[in-house]
Amino acid sequence: MDYIKIPMDIEKKSFEIIGEEMGPHDFNERQLQIIKRVIHTTADFDYKNIVYIREKAIDEALSILKKGTTIYTDTNMALSGINKRALKKLNCNAVCYVSNEEVAKIAMERGITRSMAAIEKAVEDGVEFFVFGNAPTALFRLKELILEGKSKAKFIIGAPIGFVGAAESKEEIEKLDLPMITVRGRKGGSSVAAAIVNALMYMIVER
Amino acid sequence: MDYIKIPMDIEKKSFEIIGEEMGPHDFNERQLQIIKRVIHTTADFDYKNIVYIREKAIDEALSILKKGTTIYTDTNMALSGINKRALKKLNCNAVCYVSNEEVAKIAMERGITRSMAAIEKAVEDGVEFFVFGNAPTALFRLKELILEGKSKAKFIIGAPIGFVGAAESKEEIEKLDLPMITVRGRKGGSSVAAAIVNALMYMIVER
Repeated sequence: MDYIKIPMDIEKKSFEIIGEEMGPHDFNERQLQIIKRVIHTTADFDYKNIVYIREKAIDEALSILKKGTTIYTDTNMALSGINKRALKKLNCNAVCYVSNEEVAKIAMERGITRSMAAIEKAVEDGVEFFVFGNAPTALFRLKELILEGKSKAKFIIGAPIGFVGAAESKEEIEKLDLPMITVRGRKGGSSVAAAIVNALMYMIVER
Repeated sequence: MDYIKIPMDIEKKSFEIIGEEMGPHDFNERQLQIIKRVIHTTADFDYKNIVYIREKAIDEALSILKKGTTIYTDTNMALSGINKRALKKLNCNAVCYVSNEEVAKIAMERGITRSMAAIEKAVEDGVEFFVFGNAPTALFRLKELILEGKSKAKFIIGAPIGFVGAAESKEEIEKLDLPMITVRGRKGGSSVAAAIVNALMYMIVER
């Protein structure tokens, strides 16, 4: 069978097709890198209309990444989708606490989601860079902790997916005056969240 | 803020909404569990039209899962999305070789994708249950190995996503007379592939 076998050729060709098919837009070059990578990850051109990139959000994200940071993700899937070589080159690391035993115990005792208990731990740890691909409850909880002045959050990717609370969680977080990238409405997900992190890292380092 | 904080309540409510919004269909109860879980994972009702479940594929998948098996996934993201508690209850395990050092070395030497080299190792290991969420090249390679009589594949989830080769890889694998579930066209992905595995496992075991 005849098929392209070189990974970088496949990605390059994919991005060309996406560029051809996505039609007219007002994105600048860096925004476009994010939008295209999300479409590449989902094969869904709807993301062209629902990814919201706040002014200066990319600058802030890159500035945090460049100084080396801990990225908190709400799911192990998002964590696993983040390019580890790029992360290492940036002297950054990524963590997720939902499978943490202590977190599971606290969630059980308090009748809250593990995602919520996990975000509390991340906030205690002083995390500045947050990535949400799944859990509306975690995003709601982060907003509460920010309003209480407890969080050091400086940049947020808000992309919870789903039918219960996801859209609302993103509307709520957008009310904060913080650099952020969100996916509006029901869509988003761990793959999308990881794709946004990767797009940002690839603006600074080669893979 | 007032929001649902109990994970199982959130999922139950989500599935109700999906059922209400998805409209008329001809799926039976087990097929519907797969379709709904995929929509739950993507917030994309298009999956109602593009998930292809071959006759007896569910029976075969459940029969393999019940005897305890190794599930091969083409990405660490798909691996990470598979419910580990359900897997353990079934006495099954899941593996992915794309980060395997030996596999990376072989891919580099031969100028092929790591996904292709990884599938060769899985085939050598005698894997029967294959899950593809990302790599068209791996699915093409598996078909070649099956035609050469080298693979013991008994059930395939074919859900590579993307713009180069993804749709074609699924058309090719469908030509084989094997129990399979595929996602037609460009869509699919690691989250979708993992959701299908989970839907199958939840037909047999509680989470």
